[in-house]
Amino acid sequence: MGTEALLAELREALGKDAVLTDPDITHGYSRDMMPLAPAGRPLAVVLPADVEGVQATVRACAQAKVPIVPRGAGSGLSGAANAIDGCVMLVTTKLDRILEIDPANRLAVVEPGVVNLALRQAVEREGLFYPPDPSSYDWCTIGGNLSTNAGGLCCVKYGVTTDSVLGLEAVLADGSLLKTGRRTVKGVAGYDLAKLFVGSEGTLGVITKATVALRPLPQAPGTLVAGFATTEAAGEAVTRVVREGLVPSLMEIMDATSIKAAESYLNTDLGAGSDCQALLLCQSDSGGEAAQRELAALEKICLECGSTMAYATDDLAEGKMLLETRRVVLTALEQYGIWLTDDVCVPRTRIAELIAECRRISEETRLRIAVVGHAGDGNMHPTIVYAPDSEDEFARARQAFDDILAVTMALGGTVTGEHGIGKVKREWLEREIGPVGLRVHRRIKRALDPDNLFNPGSMFSR
Amino acid sequence: MGTEALLAELREALGKDAVLTDPDITHGYSRDMMPLAPAGRPLAVVLPADVEGVQATVRACAQAKVPIVPRGAGSGLSGAANAIDGCVMLVTTKLDRILEIDPANRLAVVEPGVVNLALRQAVEREGLFYPPDPSSYDWCTIGGNLSTNAGGLCCVKYGVTTDSVLGLEAVLADGSLLKTGRRTVKGVAGYDLAKLFVGSEGTLGVITKATVALRPLPQAPGTLVAGFATTEAAGEAVTRVVREGLVPSLMEIMDATSIKAAESYLNTDLGAGSDCQALLLCQSDSGGEAAQRELAALEKICLECGSTMAYATDDLAEGKMLLETRRVVLTALEQYGIWLTDDVCVPRTRIAELIAECRRISEETRLRIAVVGHAGDGNMHPTIVYAPDSEDEFARARQAFDDILAVTMALGGTVTGEHGIGKVKREWLEREIGPVGLRVHRRIKRALDPDNLFNPGSMFSR
Repeated sequence: MGTEALLAELREALGKDAVLTDPDITHGYSRDMMPLAPAGRPLAVVLPADVEGVQATVRACAQAKVPIVPRGAGSGLSGAANAIDGCVMLVTTKLDRILEIDPANRLAVVEPGVVNLALRQAVEREGLFYPPDPSSYDWCTIGGNLSTNAGGLCCVKYGVTTDSVLGLEAVLADGSLLKTGRRTVKGVAGYDLAKLFVGSEGTLGVITKATVALRPLPQAPGTLVAGFATTEAAGEAVTRVVREGLVPSLMEIMDATSIKAAESYLNTDLGAGSDCQALLLCQSDSGGEAAQRELAALEKICLECGSTMAYATDDLAEGKMLLETRRVVLTALEQYGIWLTDDVCVPRTRIAELIAECRRISEETRLRIAVVGHAGDGNMHPTIVYAPDSEDEFARARQAFDDILAVTMALGGTVTGEHGIGKVKREWLEREIGPVGLRVHRRIKRALDPDNLFNPGSMFSR
Repeated sequence: MGTEALLAELREALGKDAVLTDPDITHGYSRDMMPLAPAGRPLAVVLPADVEGVQATVRACAQAKVPIVPRGAGSGLSGAANAIDGCVMLVTTKLDRILEIDPANRLAVVEPGVVNLALRQAVEREGLFYPPDPSSYDWCTIGGNLSTNAGGLCCVKYGVTTDSVLGLEAVLADGSLLKTGRRTVKGVAGYDLAKLFVGSEGTLGVITKATVALRPLPQAPGTLVAGFATTEAAGEAVTRVVREGLVPSLMEIMDATSIKAAESYLNTDLGAGSDCQALLLCQSDSGGEAAQRELAALEKICLECGSTMAYATDDLAEGKMLLETRRVVLTALEQYGIWLTDDVCVPRTRIAELIAECRRISEETRLRIAVVGHAGDGNMHPTIVYAPDSEDEFARARQAFDDILAVTMALGGTVTGEHGIGKVKREWLEREIGPVGLRVHRRIKRALDPDNLFNPGSMFSR
């Protein structure tokens, strides 16, 4: 089947409006938010509105031997959803129904195009909580969250996306519909295919439905902010928090560069003093006296580790404002240029070393690097700033990006904590998992997708 | 290679004492605790003491085309570790070292032969907690727990084994060593192969090492026991507990048959009255006032649902004694005959219906069926009692076992909550996951184990 015949078949199956081929329009779907990852030109963008439309697209593309790149909202940071030349971009945003919320069994059944925030708000009305909260939660979709096994600020207490998934439906390379997992809390009937598909970055099939576990809505959080004169002291505080068995609902770290950027952007003074090299932001959502006890214990540890400023509040607006300084960092860095954010995870005891290494890399590459991250789980986002029109700075930014990955591996960490491998870290996957791991990946890919239909060349090459 | 040459090679590689062939001895390794599952006669039992021994065994068996059945302590309840005729039983109990406990990063690295209780006790000395607690925790091994994705009483609050696994090493069918997962809290580099191996019941490889996440040691638990005049009332209480967002650290249910068996065995009166049809046992490990608040909220719900007796205590010995009534049920049933325990999981709102259906099946098959289970997650263990020397009763027990699975599926549940498919529920796996799901299982099995070396015919047939 030629491409014209394919397009005709897709239009026939999905309707004309669901098949876009105007390059000016399809170009807008060809990239996610990771500037380093390559992106090709799609043959077409299709927007099926139901599972049958997804199956028809998969069958038609399989027959025409045209690769499919599944894509949600495009908020990804690894290029996993970037186009490859001549592909069909299968965009799942029209599959956007919340099919069921079952409060008595604490679960929801959703289509992949549901925006994370929409699900959060819908279940909150039932007194329930869907934990995964990537920074893009107000526009990223559940389908993308599943495909990347997205994390967020909640992970230190509530885990990542895979921890909330009970069951999945996915369209396979032959167009058949795999139903895997369950609606029950526990279940061990067969291989855990749901957790295999979570984080597989669109290389094994197209997720069309998910059953997710919900939690009781936590209490309104109390917030602690603590400033440190050295990153080592802040790192020591994180280690002590973990060691002493505390589980805050949020524990974020900002280095000096991040603090300055946020203060400048928000035109505020965080009161940390000019010698502040690191901030820790912690929350407890345990409510009432339990939260007060947790925050007091966190504050005590910070002070014992030499915090020069520690301030706790149970005022919600104030807590939100403090958290805002963390949330704006990437936007704030746009004062200085374009940002390129990395995503690594180190053992929680090695955070200060990672920040020190990032400072060294910043000096070597002569680029601003701000480190923010989820201190509670060691997932750091060193963010490199470069000038938009300088090829030289772009090349140095790319160097810094890779140097940070090498440093992370030397610290016993992983090259991606929550953003994924995608099209930007392919060679790093092999470095991390080794030849045996890569061989298993290839065998599983070949077993489920023998003709390399789904997102070929993403994550790893066949 | 003939079997004699294989045995010679295994003796050469592992040492004579690590290769057992005396049928009187190997017979003792040929069965787990599930009487319904078929068991064959092993060619040999091998007990490697290190990963190289496992690799040597796998390579030799692959060359000789002799199947391998991996086995831990043999506490399983699905026949997954039962021998098949002419196989080599690869027993991992000698790989029993706790290699590392890292309190500052809250993780441990263990070999598969470590007994669950030994790991619990070792980490408890560091103020840490390894949650998965199957009933056989004092003799089952971590390797078996991983292979079956074991659960226990802890799951309602702390999840199942897969939720505690960060990384694994496993010997593959070609003898190579797969290292997958990580030491960090988060990580999304490639497919989640660790969670694919967890629960794969020895069909994909031999797990030789695991990195597990630990939690802070919970507070000593407070306990609540509540009696109900109907199972419906107890079921309603469970639904209300879930609906109102409570997360007890334990919530077990016992039906009238279980209560009577336990009371008779322990020669005690639980004070629930002669009309008591169901008991709920709940615990809170939140400590202090938080625990008191949780237990009070649980008690209030029980009373509002018509509990005829509710009693809460923060006395540890008393709590342990109350829990003992739940723990002894299977042993207590041996007063009446041999027990055959089933393992199903239903949505938490359907527990009372399941118990009612079990009562109907009990009447139809004229066999005593006691229902105990993890009410907090819907994982029920209807346990059938039959006379040891009656073929007719055994046949009816088998019928009851299957009827319970059919009823569970009709209630939207799964045919196994935590024991696994093994060699006893193979036909039920297909009924639950359907032909597409089964096809994917076969493809993954073939991709990783092309010559069907590991546990062939267990879980599903090729």
